Amino acid sequence: MRISELSEESGVSVASIKFYLREDLLFAGEASSATRTEYDPSHVARLRLIRALIDVGGLSIAAVRTVLAAIDDDAMPIVHAFGVAQQAVTASLVSSVPPSAAAEARIAELKRARGWETFEQNPGEQIAARVIDAFGVIGRSDLESLLPAYADAAEAVARADLAAVLAVGSEDRTRMVETVVVGTALGDGLFTGLRRIAQEHIARQLGLPGSALQPQPTPLTEEATS
Amino acid sequence: MRISELSEESGVSVASIKFYLREDLLFAGEASSATRTEYDPSHVARLRLIRALIDVGGLSIAAVRTVLAAIDDDAMPIVHAFGVAQQAVTASLVSSVPPSAAAEARIAELKRARGWETFEQNPGEQIAARVIDAFGVIGRSDLESLLPAYADAAEAVARADLAAVLAVGSEDRTRMVETVVVGTALGDGLFTGLRRIAQEHIARQLGLPGSALQPQPTPLTEEATS
Repeated sequence: MRISELSEESGVSVASIKFYLREDLLFAGEASSATRTEYDPSHVARLRLIRALIDVGGLSIAAVRTVLAAIDDDAMPIVHAFGVAQQAVTASLVSSVPPSAAAEARIAELKRARGWETFEQNPGEQIAARVIDAFGVIGRSDLESLLPAYADAAEAVARADLAAVLAVGSEDRTRMVETVVVGTALGDGLFTGLRRIAQEHIARQLGLPGSALQPQPTPLTEEATS
Repeated sequence: MRISELSEESGVSVASIKFYLREDLLFAGEASSATRTEYDPSHVARLRLIRALIDVGGLSIAAVRTVLAAIDDDAMPIVHAFGVAQQAVTASLVSSVPPSAAAEARIAELKRARGWETFEQNPGEQIAARVIDAFGVIGRSDLESLLPAYADAAEAVARADLAAVLAVGSEDRTRMVETVVVGTALGDGLFTGLRRIAQEHIARQLGLPGSALQPQPTPLTEEATS
């Protein structure tokens, strides 16, 4: 297909496509004549990933380049490429202020207890450790009691995330990494929203007359429970 | 205790305490003489909540006032006060651009399927529906397949959140709402961090040589597995 068709197919403007070509993010098409270059479905897939990285993941062009290099390096195991993508998408959440050693130790202990293994420097460890510190600063370290339930849920969600990645088919590295990027970046918001709804649902269940959330129990009547 | 002691006990400056008194966020102490006012532990608890709302929840003074009014209204069931607090803490995540009707219907369907009941307008519905729209915009509506697993996990986390609120003891409305605020606001980050770690753990498990994530299985050697 020509560049105009590639633009239509991918939903990316011709100007942006030319920019990505100049920046070497998109590999060149095949020159079929002096004035005509042919693009194929691999270009469409690549453009989709670039847009996902920029629009959904909020990545800079430099960060996009890093993720694409991981995909293009066939010698890099795909699980490493996932790590590169996850780290790039998560970078904006990582603070320049490191967590306390105590909070880091608390997360390390959780990892050991659960048998969670990671390479060095998973960005999630800093993010979680900083929450532990925040609990402490406001005098609510008792809320560390939430950790096991949150870890169970995080593991279940991660299993679903990876199942979605595998569903793509392992021969398509571009699409697999796109799934990692989109799932990681948008999954945060999805969980945040569903957690709010579930919180209200559970609070309502617990808040029925006679339950512990109702400070002054009222008589149980048909109206009150319906 | 005197205002200087209240400041020390709560970690809030005297200037801030005076500001909260003027703004009617903190109830007045008891005048024990013409020049001396006595404060008690209820003032310490109130100041802690105000700081949690502002520092952790990112609330404006006006929003703090709304949450405190819900706590002070003894006629308001505590579960409604939770809703007020949750909504205030979540406000910054709610967009002025509403989700599509189709995405809202998808979330409504999920709620029905799970028996989740809420009052009108839980802010989480909009947040989750906008993610559904985002999947669609980038051509990845297949990722709606994540919804059931995310909903299961969200419900488990919400149950733990409410258990932490109940652990406070139902006679202390201020502390219960503080727990809702802190848990809701900081819980997002805690889950985000743990999910990243769990994702890497699961990816590594799946990514061992010979598994589906390894496109070209390499011979199993000491180096490859160590």
